[in-house]
Amino acid sequence: MLIAFQGEYGAYSEQAIYKKFKNEPQVMPCESLNLIFEKVSTKEVDCGVIPVENSIGGSIDETYDLLLSNRLIITGEIYLTIKHCLLANPESELKDIKYVYSHPQALKQCTRFLSKLGVTKQATYDTAGSAKMIKKRGRKEEAAIASKVAAKHYGLTVLKEGIESFANNQTRFLVLSKEEINQKKSAKKDYKSSIIFEAADTPGSLYKSLGFFAAKNINLTLLQSRPIKGANWKYLFYLDFEGHVEDPPVREVLQELKNSTISCKILGSYPRDKAQII
Amino acid sequence: MLIAFQGEYGAYSEQAIYKKFKNEPQVMPCESLNLIFEKVSTKEVDCGVIPVENSIGGSIDETYDLLLSNRLIITGEIYLTIKHCLLANPESELKDIKYVYSHPQALKQCTRFLSKLGVTKQATYDTAGSAKMIKKRGRKEEAAIASKVAAKHYGLTVLKEGIESFANNQTRFLVLSKEEINQKKSAKKDYKSSIIFEAADTPGSLYKSLGFFAAKNINLTLLQSRPIKGANWKYLFYLDFEGHVEDPPVREVLQELKNSTISCKILGSYPRDKAQII
Repeated sequence: MLIAFQGEYGAYSEQAIYKKFKNEPQVMPCESLNLIFEKVSTKEVDCGVIPVENSIGGSIDETYDLLLSNRLIITGEIYLTIKHCLLANPESELKDIKYVYSHPQALKQCTRFLSKLGVTKQATYDTAGSAKMIKKRGRKEEAAIASKVAAKHYGLTVLKEGIESFANNQTRFLVLSKEEINQKKSAKKDYKSSIIFEAADTPGSLYKSLGFFAAKNINLTLLQSRPIKGANWKYLFYLDFEGHVEDPPVREVLQELKNSTISCKILGSYPRDKAQII
Repeated sequence: MLIAFQGEYGAYSEQAIYKKFKNEPQVMPCESLNLIFEKVSTKEVDCGVIPVENSIGGSIDETYDLLLSNRLIITGEIYLTIKHCLLANPESELKDIKYVYSHPQALKQCTRFLSKLGVTKQATYDTAGSAKMIKKRGRKEEAAIASKVAAKHYGLTVLKEGIESFANNQTRFLVLSKEEINQKKSAKKDYKSSIIFEAADTPGSLYKSLGFFAAKNINLTLLQSRPIKGANWKYLFYLDFEGHVEDPPVREVLQELKNSTISCKILGSYPRDKAQII
């Protein structure tokens, strides 16, 4: 099994893969989220694992936009608890650090720690990539925020572990496949489903759409709006809910939704990851 | 009148100020959005102008988080049409450019143009700040994405104007003040209001909350969810709607909302900016 993830070796996404797939999968690092969608679409890889939301930083907009513009199926979710570490070259001490490199989300999640330290934040495209970079440059005043696994991978020192501002920092990842694999096997409560829809351009249309779910007691777990590119100040809604699209009540709701919205796209049904801290 | 904005002179936020305030206001550049909230809170400035959403890139998460954690009032909104320009040092031509610096949102909005050009994107904290930086360094291979105003300000050449991927690229700005200034003066349809609420932790509670607005035919113009920091996978909803909090139907809806939600914070009522492209 070959699974694509975004970033360099040592990325949190790579950790998420090993958490879900225990049978020693092969992994392929990709430079961008877009490239993962491409490789899954062309079956160059079996599936891709992409971050969609962090419990502190919020949603990853690019992922939502790519879910819309591609035709892949969500076949799984993974909740990974993030422990950010400040990594530096072996000879560096905390007092030497002047510049900290990492992904913007990671920098944001460690704002409190970095402000106290009084360092300059430098946004990069990846946490593990930052670790790799500071190792290569070997400068005493440079540090990176990345995983403990990345420290081990690149031979860096962990100056401080758990530097995130809030405890229970979790990232939710989605597993993307070209084809459906989740035929319903067990009770309804073990599944989640994801859809994207554009509500009709009439007052109260979003309210009416959510009403279909409320009428059938289907619990919503996420509602996220994103602007429609090129349309002026119009929005799409990303909706996650409990249940499988093969459940008769869900099937009825989706039919009502399709009849009353401008567009409605089903992204997939998948087993719920119980590692989510709730 | 002294108004704070984020970024360097020449920022789109500065342009937004001149669009709304015609009586030659004094402006104060600030390094961060957080600093603007501080300066308005301590009355060091009369108000602040902050970006909240772009019609293509989506919401600016940091603004939403700061609106929650501060006690300022939204007293106005500004819709500014963004025309991104590729700026370079006077001796540079398009074929010389290898690195393009700008704010992540601006880089994202010009993805199509930059991909064709085959350049390396470099994220910085500000569009105008990138213009200032490439001018200071004077390197032939460096360009910045910023406004035409920034080009004039720093003595740079406009290599290409209107490089954004989608037409009608607008950013919505909010005017923040320490005190309320928008007593209701004209008809209801000229006002918008903004609130933040946390729906009760019961199935269908969001649906029920939106129902209060639907029952009074109050039109929603924005619904945006944000994770509650430190709470696990719980969400706040930012809601914009037509009308003024002094309108009797709005007052009733807000009372119902306060009675049935965990929290409900009114951010303000303000005249609608008709420059919004809809």
